[in-house]
Amino acid sequence: MNIGIVGLGLIGGSIGLKLQKLNHSVYGVTNNKTNAKKAKDRKLANIVSCNFSILQECSVVILALPIKDLVNPSKDLIAAIPKTAIVTDVGSVKVPIVKTWEKINPLFIGSHPMAGTEKNGVEAGYENLFDNATWVITPNSKSDKDSLEKLSKLISALGSEIIHTSPELHDQAVALISHLPIFLSSCLIRTACTNDNQSLLDLSYKLAATGFADTSRVGGGNPILGLDLAKNNQDNIIYSLKLLKNNISKIEETIKNKDWESLLNYLEYTKTKRSYFIN
Amino acid sequence: MNIGIVGLGLIGGSIGLKLQKLNHSVYGVTNNKTNAKKAKDRKLANIVSCNFSILQECSVVILALPIKDLVNPSKDLIAAIPKTAIVTDVGSVKVPIVKTWEKINPLFIGSHPMAGTEKNGVEAGYENLFDNATWVITPNSKSDKDSLEKLSKLISALGSEIIHTSPELHDQAVALISHLPIFLSSCLIRTACTNDNQSLLDLSYKLAATGFADTSRVGGGNPILGLDLAKNNQDNIIYSLKLLKNNISKIEETIKNKDWESLLNYLEYTKTKRSYFIN
Repeated sequence: MNIGIVGLGLIGGSIGLKLQKLNHSVYGVTNNKTNAKKAKDRKLANIVSCNFSILQECSVVILALPIKDLVNPSKDLIAAIPKTAIVTDVGSVKVPIVKTWEKINPLFIGSHPMAGTEKNGVEAGYENLFDNATWVITPNSKSDKDSLEKLSKLISALGSEIIHTSPELHDQAVALISHLPIFLSSCLIRTACTNDNQSLLDLSYKLAATGFADTSRVGGGNPILGLDLAKNNQDNIIYSLKLLKNNISKIEETIKNKDWESLLNYLEYTKTKRSYFIN
Repeated sequence: MNIGIVGLGLIGGSIGLKLQKLNHSVYGVTNNKTNAKKAKDRKLANIVSCNFSILQECSVVILALPIKDLVNPSKDLIAAIPKTAIVTDVGSVKVPIVKTWEKINPLFIGSHPMAGTEKNGVEAGYENLFDNATWVITPNSKSDKDSLEKLSKLISALGSEIIHTSPELHDQAVALISHLPIFLSSCLIRTACTNDNQSLLDLSYKLAATGFADTSRVGGGNPILGLDLAKNNQDNIIYSLKLLKNNISKIEETIKNKDWESLLNYLEYTKTKRSYFIN
């Protein structure tokens, strides 16, 4: 099959490497010549170009672009994708991307691979990124059944376990387990470092250890990603922050009232429940 | 030197192993015979006993006990420690422990090694736990200068970098960078799993990935430790939770108002500031 990939960063590049192993012909588009050269050197696709027109050969097109370029796609990109092609994206929010693309392409179905590393860019992709990962596919009532089946088969072949859910439910779930941790973790860093007492601040910098490092990791991530998530999953993130503040108020009251039995129950509950998320 | 260690868990056991390497005679006390046998087999001390009376031979005594046993020490323990011995503890709060022990022993000075692993108990200690760790020593105006100097030398020899600060400032700093992450992380787990929508809950369990795993790690830790911290550092933890809620409200307002420039500044600020804590 001729498969187009727009964007050859961590996700796009990894898809390109794996699809070639599966004997597909991969047409990769990069945003500039420097990246095109690097992508060619790394053999991320069979054909690499900065020109969207190569997509005209493809029966499947995978949009591996940042969220902002997915919700506001360029006219040249839109024009280059055949109307008969199955199109998907890999963005970490789904509702605004699905709304945008189902108007553009009748065979569009959104998706989201839950895989990643700290690295990004054209140097980052590697063949086995999706082995044993979870890949969410988000059809809605308008989605073409045949395209959904073909897309699911293709993604399975990349090595991932597939989950089908609606764009709406996807965005609610990732708000809780992926986006909320980012904003929460950012607030923790701000709380620890916004302090008029310089001695306390200096001591805090020195004493921070693995607990702080882990809890603050995603709050120290790419600010542009956090911004794009807030812009495109605003209501769900606000709702999650509200729930979180309620839970913080509850634990605060428990500690204030020295209600140690309730506090112990609270901490035992979350210790047990964490194992439902982390296997 | 004859050095007593009360409790041969992760911290006490590691101290025992290292002190023997430094040619000290280590007198270790455990809470029961099963642990005493294991401690002997692992050679955590030169002499191991369940009887506090062996401490009478020691010129330094290190209390490596849980916080609850440090703020409410047994009469037998108090009676067994020579009044001429330098005494320290390794608890992760300092004010209530220092208040308790400075009345019991004139040469007591609190301390807190910032080292640990996921393991605990008599099987957990290892010789190099304190290499390149930070070890806080918390003298106050009543502390004996000579004892402080001797204790600092001994702890340096264990391989750690020493920081001297007051018990009060220590407890404020650890509330922010160590205790707050525990309660916050627990609230995150509760927020993600307290949900009437079973489909959303099931999807959230499946989609949680490394971001959630890291941010929730310390919230899934030992509930008894969290409880002991809340009991013994109550005011500082409540103050930290209040600051955190204010910061969450700020980021919530920013997202509500679509003030994307401020949000980007917020996320860039915390990304930069995190590097002050994590080297």
